[in-house]
This record gives sequence, C-alpha cells and structure tokens, in this order.
Amino acid sequence: MNHEIRVRVRFCETDMAGHVNNTSYFIYLEEARGKFFQEVMPDDLGSAGQFILASTKCDFVSQAYFGQELKVSSGVSHIGNSSFSFTHSIEAADTGERIAESEAVVVHFNYDAQKSEAIPRRLRDALESHLVPNL
Amino acid sequence: MNHEIRVRVRFCETDMAGHVNNTSYFIYLEEARGKFFQEVMPDDLGSAGQFILASTKCDFVSQAYFGQELKVSSGVSHIGNSSFSFTHSIEAADTGERIAESEAVVVHFNYDAQKSEAIPRRLRDALESHLVPNL
Amino acid sequence: MNHEIRVRVRFCETDMAGHVNNTSYFIYLEEARGKFFQEVMPDDLGSAGQFILASTKCDFVSQAYFGQELKVSSGVSHIGNSSFSFTHSIEAADTGERIAESEAVVVHFNYDAQKSEAIPRRLRDALESHLVPNL
Amino acid sequence: MNHEIRVRVRFCETDMAGHVNNTSYFIYLEEARGKFFQEVMPDDLGSAGQFILASTKCDFVSQAYFGQELKVSSGVSHIGNSSFSFTHSIEAADTGERIAESEAVVVHFNYDAQKSEAIPRRLRDALESHLVPNL
Repeated sequence: MNHEIRVRVRFCETDMAGHVNNTSYFIYLEEARGKFFQEVMPDDLGSAGQFILASTKCDFVSQAYFGQELKVSSGVSHIGNSSFSFTHSIEAADTGERIAESEAVVVHFNYDAQKSEAIPRRLRDALESHLVPNL
Repeated sequence: MNHEIRVRVRFCETDMAGHVNNTSYFIYLEEARGKFFQEVMPDDLGSAGQFILASTKCDFVSQAYFGQELKVSSGVSHIGNSSFSFTHSIEAADTGERIAESEAVVVHFNYDAQKSEAIPRRLRDALESHLVPNL
Repeated sequence: MNHEIRVRVRFCETDMAGHVNNTSYFIYLEEARGKFFQEVMPDDLGSAGQFILASTKCDFVSQAYFGQELKVSSGVSHIGNSSFSFTHSIEAADTGERIAESEAVVVHFNYDAQKSEAIPRRLRDALESHLVPNL
Repeated sequence: MNHEIRVRVRFCETDMAGHVNNTSYFIYLEEARGKFFQEVMPDDLGSAGQFILASTKCDFVSQAYFGQELKVSSGVSHIGNSSFSFTHSIEAADTGERIAESEAVVVHFNYDAQKSEAIPRRLRDALESHLVPNL
C-alpha cells in the first residue's frame, strides 16, 4: 500500500563532490508527500496548504548521481491527534539499490489561525488506508 | 552609486562540474535586488511584495567556486512607466575578477489586483538616485 | 523538430509571492538541455560534462503555480564554431498558455583543459538536425 | 564552545506557505558545517572534500520568514572511529526565538577510494575541542 513516485536527478541537484547533494533529497521527499496528498486524499482535503512539516530525518545509505532515476516510496507510519508520520525509502529505480531512508512528521495546520488542528475524520480514513510498517 | 552585497558560495550551490551551477547566480542576483529594496527604498515602499521579475539575463564570464566570496553590484539602468531595469555585475571579492554580468527588468506589480501599476513618485525618486550606466 | 519535456512544479520551487520563483525556471531550462543532450546526441557525445553555459536569458510572460505541469520546448537556434544556442519556450501543458521564453548559449568545453573546443562534426550534425527558428 | 554563523533568509528560500521552506534549513545547516570546517580545522584538514553526510534530522520548532536573520549554532556531540556528530540549533538572531534543532552524522570519507576512513589524530583533537552537550 505504498505510494510511489519517480524522480530523475537534475544536474543542479548534484554538488562538487560529484553526487546528489544532501539538500536535494529533501526536495524529493517533499515532492513525494505533495503527490501523496494530491493522489491519495479526497478531493476536498488534499491541499498542501493545510499541512506543515514538524520534523524530518534522512539516513543517506548510498550516493546517487546525475541522471539517475529514483523511486521514492511513502507510507503512513503513525497517526496521532493532529499530526501523522510518513516513512519513506529512496531506491535506484533500475537496480533497487537502497539510497536513503527517511521519516517525516506532518502536522494538520491552519495557516489562517497559525495553529495545529485535529485531523478530521475523512483525512484520518484516507491516512489509515495507507498505514504501513516502517519502510 | 552602486549598491553592493557580498555572498559566499555554498557547497550546495556547486554542481558536479566542480563550479557554481548556473542556477545559483540567479539566487545571488535576487538577493542583491532584495537587499537593494530593503536598503535603498523609503521604509514604506521597500517591500519585495510589490515587485515582479519580468525578464533577466546573465552572461557567465568566469567560473566561481565553493567558498569563494563574491561581490554583487547593482544599479538602476532604466526607469519606465511601470517597470525599471537593473544592471548587475558579479566579481570575485578578493581579486576583482569578473564572474558574471546581468540585467533584470522588474515590474511594479499589485499582487492583489494581479496587474502592473505605474511607479509612484517616491519610488521613482529612490530609483533615480541610483541610476548608473550599465555595469 | 523541437525537443519537449514535461516538468511538474514542486512546492519548494514556489516562493512567498505564491508563484514559481524566478530561479526555478532556470532549473527547468537546465533540465530541458540535459535531456536534450541525453536523447538527441549520439551515445558517445551526450555527456553534460562537455558543455558549459555561457549566457542565458528568460522572459517571464505569465506566472506558474505549484502542481502545474509545464511543457518545456527546446530547439537549436544557432551553431557557431565552439558554441551553439538554444531557444526555449515554457508553456502550461494543459492550456498552452505561454509562461516563459528563453535563450541560452552553450559552449563546447573541455573541463580538463578548462577551455572551449571546436564543435566536432558528429555533434554538429546532431545539432543541425534540431535547428529551429526562435520559439 | 559553539561555532556560530549568521544567515539571512533569501526570497527564493521561502515557499507559497509564506515561510521558509523545509528544504532551506538543510542549506543553512550545510553552510554551518562548511564554515565550521573552514574555521575550526587545522589548515591541512579542513576540506569539505573529505567528509560525507550519513544522516541528518531537523525538528522545525517555529516558522522563519523572508529577510529574517538566523543564528545557526553548531557543536560536536559525539566522536566515533570514522564518524562524528553535530548538534545544531537555529534561532532568530534578534529575539533568540528557537526556530529549529538539528543533528547530523558526518563520516570521514575518502572520495577516491569511496570508503570511510578512521578519523586521524589531529582532526580528532580539533573535534574534541568543540565537544558540547546537545544544543
């Protein structure tokens, strides 16, 4: 029940060490969550505008390189009252080589009021249908 | 009457060619304009929120590298009815080596109405005091 | 004979003005050239490692937004001795709305010797087969 | 014994939510480590070219905004055989408001051999002189 996206490493996402810069992985992970919200959420719930990232962690297992196609898999690992957690893995799309493992805590957030809000029932249902063990 | 800022090249702004990636120069140039607006404009005029970039060009003369300190000089080269132009140069701060030359056209823009607006008198005065020939 | 890619605007490519930041367009344009080289060049010629960007310009016609799919079209507009030029257009993939127009001058560059080199015959042939009038 | 840098938030580091995008914090943290290496390391040891990031985590405590000056404090929290850990905090430079807390594991890495290497004595000495409890 994982959600998957593919990304191809851009030239500007590399650095002078010849590999993908560490900051670029967080771009890929944010894109994975954005597409998760777009595809998984009910139409009236999926706006990125109602979430805020509270924490994220990434373990860099193997280096990735320019032009490489990466598969970013995402699942929901925990659902709390007003926040929930993603577990992500990044693999080489062709060989399956593990590139990185990540977690992220996302808060259901009201930007107008600038405060967190309880996860509504329909969002909770959508998240629950994508609960996975850690990737 | 040029406005100057210093930027130090970040590691993630380089690419696998070992030099500063072309996209990073536009980050430096945007920062130069942002600080120009903050420092040069009258207090009640300087918000970045009232401008939009219409066009920009950059000629890459010499490569720059990680850790290098760059001097970005900016002046106003033209003032029209609702738009004005910047001329920028980027040099190595220590040697003065020319790194890049740039131009940018900025429009006075009303984001609420989503349309351009004539440059008000006091903004025009501030811009005129920084008119320069092309750098 | 244009070369086309599709890109989807990432959240981090927007800025607080609510639209795609100007620096992000240069990311898309670099990606377009990178894929052009990968797909159009003979196998033994297509490395991004043998080119360097000499100049680029972008006119921002309409704003683009998060999640929007963009079509970036690229053609070769001029071939010189050691350099050649791209003409690019960026359009909304669904409506065809013109978003941006760009040009770029690319130099055939020997990074080991750190100097430009004449465009070899087979590269010239590949480029000529994609000559277009300005987009 | 913390190492401190100041960064000013760039316009392109914000996103359409109106605040600093999560990926931008990792840019600031990488810059903090880069300057730590430049300033703290013995001259013959400080190259960024001999380190690779193994893991990083960031807790986002408060939002930051365009133009804000941030203080990024860094200390060494652990030294292993071939790796060591940073503890970072990011605060508003004017008010001291806590913006983010971060950890990073860095490996002493031989890029030619593409493998980790034991931390040499003089690097260890330099790191030990900046050991701190978690920030």
